[in-house]
Amino acid sequence: MIKVGIIGATGYTGVELVRILSHHPEVEIIGLTSQTYTDQAFGDVFPSLQKITGLILESQDAGGLAERCDVIFTALPHGVSMEVAETVVAKGKKVIDLGADYRFDDISVYEEWYKVGHKTPELGREAVYGLPEVNRPQIRQARIIGNPGCYPTSIILGLAPLLKKGLIHTDTIIADAKSGISGGGRGLNLAFHYPECNENFKAYNIGIHRHTPEIEQELSKLAGKKITVSFTPHLVPMTRGILSTIYASAAKPYSTEELLELYKEFYSDEYFIRIHPPGQYPQTKWVYGSNFCDIGLQVDPRTDRVVVVSAIDNLVKGASGQAIQNMNAMFGLPETTGLDFAPVFP
Amino acid sequence: MIKVGIIGATGYTGVELVRILSHHPEVEIIGLTSQTYTDQAFGDVFPSLQKITGLILESQDAGGLAERCDVIFTALPHGVSMEVAETVVAKGKKVIDLGADYRFDDISVYEEWYKVGHKTPELGREAVYGLPEVNRPQIRQARIIGNPGCYPTSIILGLAPLLKKGLIHTDTIIADAKSGISGGGRGLNLAFHYPECNENFKAYNIGIHRHTPEIEQELSKLAGKKITVSFTPHLVPMTRGILSTIYASAAKPYSTEELLELYKEFYSDEYFIRIHPPGQYPQTKWVYGSNFCDIGLQVDPRTDRVVVVSAIDNLVKGASGQAIQNMNAMFGLPETTGLDFAPVFP
Amino acid sequence: MIKVGIIGATGYTGVELVRILSHHPEVEIIGLTSQTYTDQAFGDVFPSLQKITGLILESQDAGGLAERCDVIFTALPHGVSMEVAETVVAKGKKVIDLGADYRFDDISVYEEWYKVGHKTPELGREAVYGLPEVNRPQIRQARIIGNPGCYPTSIILGLAPLLKKGLIHTDTIIADAKSGISGGGRGLNLAFHYPECNENFKAYNIGIHRHTPEIEQELSKLAGKKITVSFTPHLVPMTRGILSTIYASAAKPYSTEELLELYKEFYSDEYFIRIHPPGQYPQTKWVYGSNFCDIGLQVDPRTDRVVVVSAIDNLVKGASGQAIQNMNAMFGLPETTGLDFAPVFP
Amino acid sequence: MIKVGIIGATGYTGVELVRILSHHPEVEIIGLTSQTYTDQAFGDVFPSLQKITGLILESQDAGGLAERCDVIFTALPHGVSMEVAETVVAKGKKVIDLGADYRFDDISVYEEWYKVGHKTPELGREAVYGLPEVNRPQIRQARIIGNPGCYPTSIILGLAPLLKKGLIHTDTIIADAKSGISGGGRGLNLAFHYPECNENFKAYNIGIHRHTPEIEQELSKLAGKKITVSFTPHLVPMTRGILSTIYASAAKPYSTEELLELYKEFYSDEYFIRIHPPGQYPQTKWVYGSNFCDIGLQVDPRTDRVVVVSAIDNLVKGASGQAIQNMNAMFGLPETTGLDFAPVFP
Repeated sequence: MIKVGIIGATGYTGVELVRILSHHPEVEIIGLTSQTYTDQAFGDVFPSLQKITGLILESQDAGGLAERCDVIFTALPHGVSMEVAETVVAKGKKVIDLGADYRFDDISVYEEWYKVGHKTPELGREAVYGLPEVNRPQIRQARIIGNPGCYPTSIILGLAPLLKKGLIHTDTIIADAKSGISGGGRGLNLAFHYPECNENFKAYNIGIHRHTPEIEQELSKLAGKKITVSFTPHLVPMTRGILSTIYASAAKPYSTEELLELYKEFYSDEYFIRIHPPGQYPQTKWVYGSNFCDIGLQVDPRTDRVVVVSAIDNLVKGASGQAIQNMNAMFGLPETTGLDFAPVFP
Repeated sequence: MIKVGIIGATGYTGVELVRILSHHPEVEIIGLTSQTYTDQAFGDVFPSLQKITGLILESQDAGGLAERCDVIFTALPHGVSMEVAETVVAKGKKVIDLGADYRFDDISVYEEWYKVGHKTPELGREAVYGLPEVNRPQIRQARIIGNPGCYPTSIILGLAPLLKKGLIHTDTIIADAKSGISGGGRGLNLAFHYPECNENFKAYNIGIHRHTPEIEQELSKLAGKKITVSFTPHLVPMTRGILSTIYASAAKPYSTEELLELYKEFYSDEYFIRIHPPGQYPQTKWVYGSNFCDIGLQVDPRTDRVVVVSAIDNLVKGASGQAIQNMNAMFGLPETTGLDFAPVFP
Repeated sequence: MIKVGIIGATGYTGVELVRILSHHPEVEIIGLTSQTYTDQAFGDVFPSLQKITGLILESQDAGGLAERCDVIFTALPHGVSMEVAETVVAKGKKVIDLGADYRFDDISVYEEWYKVGHKTPELGREAVYGLPEVNRPQIRQARIIGNPGCYPTSIILGLAPLLKKGLIHTDTIIADAKSGISGGGRGLNLAFHYPECNENFKAYNIGIHRHTPEIEQELSKLAGKKITVSFTPHLVPMTRGILSTIYASAAKPYSTEELLELYKEFYSDEYFIRIHPPGQYPQTKWVYGSNFCDIGLQVDPRTDRVVVVSAIDNLVKGASGQAIQNMNAMFGLPETTGLDFAPVFP
Repeated sequence: MIKVGIIGATGYTGVELVRILSHHPEVEIIGLTSQTYTDQAFGDVFPSLQKITGLILESQDAGGLAERCDVIFTALPHGVSMEVAETVVAKGKKVIDLGADYRFDDISVYEEWYKVGHKTPELGREAVYGLPEVNRPQIRQARIIGNPGCYPTSIILGLAPLLKKGLIHTDTIIADAKSGISGGGRGLNLAFHYPECNENFKAYNIGIHRHTPEIEQELSKLAGKKITVSFTPHLVPMTRGILSTIYASAAKPYSTEELLELYKEFYSDEYFIRIHPPGQYPQTKWVYGSNFCDIGLQVDPRTDRVVVVSAIDNLVKGASGQAIQNMNAMFGLPETTGLDFAPVFP
């Protein structure tokens, strides 16, 4: 059994880790920490998990928890994880960070976009970007994982086959992405106050969202050249789900069927990637509560553009599910272990 | 492995059976039938279950399917199941009917409320009302189960301890129940057209809903005397969940704490019943996608009324999960087998 | 033109006052105050009202504003209005308070339920409960109005004909009420955080909600005797609307049609009350954005109970619309002036 | 008073026409027709409009209705309006068609995209595309108006200033649009069944939506050259609202502020266009129930793209409100007459 600790267990990605790990056949949850709810039963804070877990929330002692665990998940605001991660690694334990602190190859990019100095730059450079479908070999060897952001997961997986095979003009990429409100976390904010989001749809942070450099970093590595994208996030009045609609000009006039075949082949060994048939596009509800990433696409012969649509559950494949997939890979388990549950539909 | 067939697999309770049974460790799904989608892959009709099941929908041959199975779930409109059930039982196989045809001890009550003659009255009288927390011994011996309605499940479980112990005046019961829209099924209907239900709340079928006699039958058996209730269903703009707010006059001035203790004791061996502490009431989101029934209550000393609140997921504990719980009981498995998954929150 | 000021204009009832008053043919809005957004353009804080109003938010100087106005609406937390009201009345101007400070005939009831001492008890006793369909003559003469709460409005209007005519047993009243989330105001609160309310339904404050004494006060006056009710509020995942389902035992076995006729007669001169035909019940969407209160009812001959269903928009007839209706009455205008706009459907 | 008839009054655009026209100071509604609800009171079919209109639905006699009216609104499926329109025009009365039959300058484009032969090609060529901000002079003279589609309204108004002034590369236009479910009409369809759309987000008809040629026709006229666009529609789990996010490469490196100034100037006389300040983008809730079109934009210096965001209520500025704006223009009234009501927020 892998001994697991979660630091920052009472945000939405934390509670999702607990939900999934409670049923993971090879995991024992050793400890959960919280600054706000220390000493309370986890099931009292989240009554949905009454009878699922009996754990009591601990105060945030990273070193102490690390000693009792094999791996620590950190679900903390950016800038906070780096202090914790160093402590854990020093104890010889693995870290999977769900925040942004360990996602960047170039620390200065992180510092520029997140407006904070990095306290553990060496660890930052060592960390592996935890998208298993793209970086599996490095993940298996990693001590520390920067778990991808939700938007980047949907966009990178949506574009990987096209970039890897050089089928699009890389200066034409536009990613128009739409997220459920849980992506904004559990912290109070007028933007996430029910009457302000319900029956409402909006764009935000156009061209300046912090997931942009992370998307560009990974797309550039896939393409073998520097890529700049237009990325526009939106908020959808629903709790879970991200759907990204991604546009790029085709290098040659491919057919929809041709490209879909290529996607199927590219992802043939990937359980969590499902490719839709021609004319059918993903819907977020079809992946609700699951670790799947569904992808469909359409070539528009009138404009010679490829339109890729990808859908994930932002809290599962976009966060906690993917983190567990990384853990499985790091510990030599099949990646589907504890993660092959079906979406909840309707 | 229990060999299972589902007749009428493409309604919402059918697809929920498939979702849950696909992960049940002691079940093999042998066949799924559909009149509308015959010969199509189940995963093409419900893309959420792509990679979860590879089954192809069969035409509706109850006898043929029964021969290959140990138990048949029927998820059909009322009046249709009875034809199928007789065929299956004649083959020596068990039936769990998710409709209303086998819920009534008194066939004439069924015929009066459902405006249809019963075609298999003997089987109707033999059938067991499948609420395990109440009728477990009979369920274990049953050949045919009438799986409870969603509203009745929430109301009967909410009142059972009070009635069994005689703590309320039985002529004062009012059940004000609220359901998500999926309770109305997958058939098209202006009442379930998105713009007509979204941002809307309404009552319907006041005093005449067909779940009324079923509620009264079971409450009467629990109380040992005939009970008539006021039952008002409502539609909530959400997909899943039922919350019932149940009122009754207390026989004596009990305290909230006293009654909650009694509930805990009454349900102490029931995994799927969770009792909330004083001052906290169930929320449908806390049981979303799970087989739990959460119960809280409040004594109002100003009026000497008890107010019980119970919440279930109408498609799980209110339908398909409960059907599987019945199957587990009928086949000698722990009732939690394949059903102990956590609610999806948020 | 009536000169109007609004103190506390940037909560949901404040912005609703501005929306409606901007189109009122006999009103000029003189000033809007806010503690949070002082000196900002109202249309910058609420972009929905760009081009509708050009007013700049003022700091909260009640006396100064009162001098320039004929009437002041106070949309403030309870306990705060009373300080303001006294200042305004001292200037010889009228006050319509949307909070609870001026709703109670018996100041000690207010102090007991709201846990605060009343600072202007004489003004409190003078104030008129502003439900025009019930208290019109007093409203017309009033200097200060306690504008009713949203739940009480729906419940009192739903029961008034039955109580006035003595048709029900007054010790059997149960009001099961359901509200959209905007009823909770614009202040941040985990209970109103989108992912916590969406796709969720819950009861709260059972038997202890502060609207209880207000409901009982008015029902008692209508019945001519002291009435105690069971009142349970719930939260519906929608922005606007309250639907109350109200139960009471009939004094005699009336028919649904008979009682509906009586309601029509009772409310025959009331533009804002619409009585539904037998078998049809109100839906909150049918009053969305309007000042209507829709009422339907059903006699259940099996239990001899009357079930009344009433629906309002909590921000209009349940708050700001009713406040303006009161203003119209106080200034001798037809009550429909500026308020006869249609609901937005769908 | 303008005498108005509505043919096809019981779809969502029909009921919205009735809602708005009932308060229009210069309009008398003479007749409403319906095939489904003939002889029923409009307020019985749509209880939201009880007391707002007392009209009884007539059978569909276009000629007879036209004789009693000055103008007829047709809210019918495409292919059906053309028969009606000819009859009305022959009586010397004006027609405003809310469908697609009269939106195309080139009839063969209509026939190709809508797969139906046009029965009144001459009238089709005479008809004016009814977007007042773009085609006002022709609208004022028109006998017959093709009222724009909802998506085209939001996209054309969003791009008009850029195209008119030649500020973008016209072969780079991508319109990613998102609509509430009411855009799909009142007809039953599994795609609009509540449990299938709620808590769900999806793209549909990528590259083949019938609004594409209409968008291209008007953009081409604005630019003075043939334009082809990528247009992707999506469904948002909400009732009303369209938000379009539109991408194009800037011809030169403009600043956001510079372009916003230009938009303000371009639309300086247009009451219904509201331009947002830098860094703020439209939200559909801010135009809910109103005839406004809100526009914001952002230049992304990293990619030299302009991102325009526009929001409308699909049933008002995207359909019935715009139709009434056209009527006002055709009859010499200020275009805001009866249309200057505020959005409902929250």
